[in-house]
Amino acid sequence: MTTTAQGHPSPNSRPILIVGSIALDDVKTPVTERKNLLGGSASYAALGASLFSPVNLVGIVGLDFPSEHIELFQQRHIDLSGLQRVEGETFRWSGEYMENMNERETLSIALNVFEDFRPDLPPVYETTPFVLLGNIAPSLQSLVLDQVKDPILTIADTMDLWIQTTREDLDRLVARVDVLILNDSEADLLTGHRNPIKAAETILARGPKYVCVKKGEHGAILVGKNEGEFFSTSAYPIQDVLDPTGAGDTFAGGFAGYLASSEQQTPSFADMRQAVVYGTALASYNVESFSAEKIRTLQRPDVEKRVTELRAITQF
Amino acid sequence: MTTTAQGHPSPNSRPILIVGSIALDDVKTPVTERKNLLGGSASYAALGASLFSPVNLVGIVGLDFPSEHIELFQQRHIDLSGLQRVEGETFRWSGEYMENMNERETLSIALNVFEDFRPDLPPVYETTPFVLLGNIAPSLQSLVLDQVKDPILTIADTMDLWIQTTREDLDRLVARVDVLILNDSEADLLTGHRNPIKAAETILARGPKYVCVKKGEHGAILVGKNEGEFFSTSAYPIQDVLDPTGAGDTFAGGFAGYLASSEQQTPSFADMRQAVVYGTALASYNVESFSAEKIRTLQRPDVEKRVTELRAITQF
Repeated sequence: MTTTAQGHPSPNSRPILIVGSIALDDVKTPVTERKNLLGGSASYAALGASLFSPVNLVGIVGLDFPSEHIELFQQRHIDLSGLQRVEGETFRWSGEYMENMNERETLSIALNVFEDFRPDLPPVYETTPFVLLGNIAPSLQSLVLDQVKDPILTIADTMDLWIQTTREDLDRLVARVDVLILNDSEADLLTGHRNPIKAAETILARGPKYVCVKKGEHGAILVGKNEGEFFSTSAYPIQDVLDPTGAGDTFAGGFAGYLASSEQQTPSFADMRQAVVYGTALASYNVESFSAEKIRTLQRPDVEKRVTELRAITQF
Repeated sequence: MTTTAQGHPSPNSRPILIVGSIALDDVKTPVTERKNLLGGSASYAALGASLFSPVNLVGIVGLDFPSEHIELFQQRHIDLSGLQRVEGETFRWSGEYMENMNERETLSIALNVFEDFRPDLPPVYETTPFVLLGNIAPSLQSLVLDQVKDPILTIADTMDLWIQTTREDLDRLVARVDVLILNDSEADLLTGHRNPIKAAETILARGPKYVCVKKGEHGAILVGKNEGEFFSTSAYPIQDVLDPTGAGDTFAGGFAGYLASSEQQTPSFADMRQAVVYGTALASYNVESFSAEKIRTLQRPDVEKRVTELRAITQF
C-alpha cells in the first residue's frame, strides 16, 4: 500500500465500508448563507475516515452531482464502485441555524434519487472488515448489514428522525451492531434517560458492545459492556463555530476510520478511547468551515496536532 | 500543625479565609422533600476547603442555628472566631428542583440576621494568605477584601442574582480578584457570550488572572491571562443526582482549599488545573446526598479516589 500525504498513513489500516446519504445542502447561519454545498452523512464520514483507512463508499447521487465532488472523493482514495449514479436529482437538504448555533431548523428536504435507494454492495465490498452505517433510515442500514460477511466491527450512527418515525427498524438494527453512536438528546429520546450514562447503559442492554454519546461542545462519553469500560472527553475548544452541519458524521467517520487503522485485529477499549478523541479532533475542524471545506484539505498531521493539544489541555 | 484523618493533611497547607452565607434550607426534589438542612455558600465552601487547609470562617447566624452544625464546623477544624451569632433567626432559603434536576426554582428567601450582616474580620484573620469570597452580595465580598492584607490569592464566586441586581458592585469586585468562578449561564449573562471560552476571555480583560467556568454535569474550564493557559475537564460521572444544592460552593471550597495546600508559594497554572479537578471531585460527592450530608463525613482519601478515577476515565 502506498502512503500519500492525504492518504491513509497507517501501515495496518484496513478498508472500511461507509454507507449513508450524499447530498447537496443549502445552509443558513445567523451570519451568512451558502448554497449547493457538498453534504450528507456518507460524504462527511467518508472524508473523515479517509484520513486513516481506505474507504468503500456506498450511496446514490443524481446526474446533477458535480464532478468536482467525485474528484474530491477520488483524491481521498475513496473507492466509488459502490456509488450509484442515476437519472434524476441528488438528495437536497436545506437548514437554518439559530443564534446559538446549537438549534437547527430543517427548511426543506427533497429526497429525489434517494427515495428509491437500495444499497446493493459490489461483491468486493462484502468482505470489508469495518462497517460504518452512517445516518440514514435504519432499514437501509440493516440491508447493508445483511450483505457484509463476518465484519470485525460494525458501527451505526442514527438521528432523532428515525427514533421518532421508524423505531422498530431502529431497534432491530441496534440489536445487531457492535457500536451505536448518537448524541445526548437522541440518547434521551431513545431511552427516556436524560443522563447520558444511564441512557448508554440502557442501550448496551439492547445489544451493542459500546455506546458513544456525543455532547457537542461538551465532548463525548463512551461506555462499554464490560466492567470499567467508561471514557469521557472534553471537546476540542472552538470559539467560532461557522457551520456545525456534518460534525456528527465527521466524528463517526474519524472514529470508525481510526479503528480500522488500529494495530489490533479487534479494537480494544483503549483503541476505542483514542477513536473518540480522533473523532473529536476531526469534528472540531469540521465546524470551523461551511460544508466539508476544511475536512477536504485536512492532512493527518493536522488531526494529530489537535489530538496532542486536546491531551495537553485536559491532562492533570 | 496536627494532622487528623478529617483534617488538613498537607504539611504545607496555609489558612484560607472563607466568607459567605450560612443558612437553613428547605429542599424539594421530584423524589422527596427535606427541611431545616444546613445550607449557605460559606457552609459548603468551608466544609469542602477544610479537607485541605485550615479555614477561617466569616459569616452570621441567628440564635436558632443548631449547635450540631457548630460542632460539625469545629470537628472540621474550621475556626469560628469570625462567625457572628446574633439575636434573631438564621438566613433561610427554600427551593425546588424540576424533573431534570438542572432547573431550580427559589420558593422563598428570608434574609433574617443576614439583612444587616457586615463582615468584620477578627484582627487575626486580616493576614490570611488565601481568600475565598463565597457567593454573597458583591458589596460584602468587597468589604472583606478591604480588610485583608497582601493575600497570596483571592477567589470570588458569584451568581445570576448579583449580575442582574448589583452589576456595578460586581464589576468593581471582579476587577480586584485574582480568580473568578461562575457557571456557564452566569458567564453568558455577565458577558453576552454563550461560548464559555469567549466569556472567560472577556472577563479576564476586566481584571482577574484566571476565570473558571463551571458547566455542571459537563465539567469545567479554566482560562488564564497568559498565553496557553487553558484547561478543560469532564465532570466525575454521577448517575443519580439527589440534591445539587451547594455543588458550586463545594467546588469553590475544594478549588480554593486545594490551592492553599499547594507546595508553591503562589499557585502555578498546573496547581490551578489540579484545583479544578479537586473541586470537581468534591462537588461530585456533594450532589449524591441532601445538603452537606456526604461532604461532612468525607475524608481526604475519598477525594483522592475520585481524582484518580477521573484521571483514569479521561486519559487517552
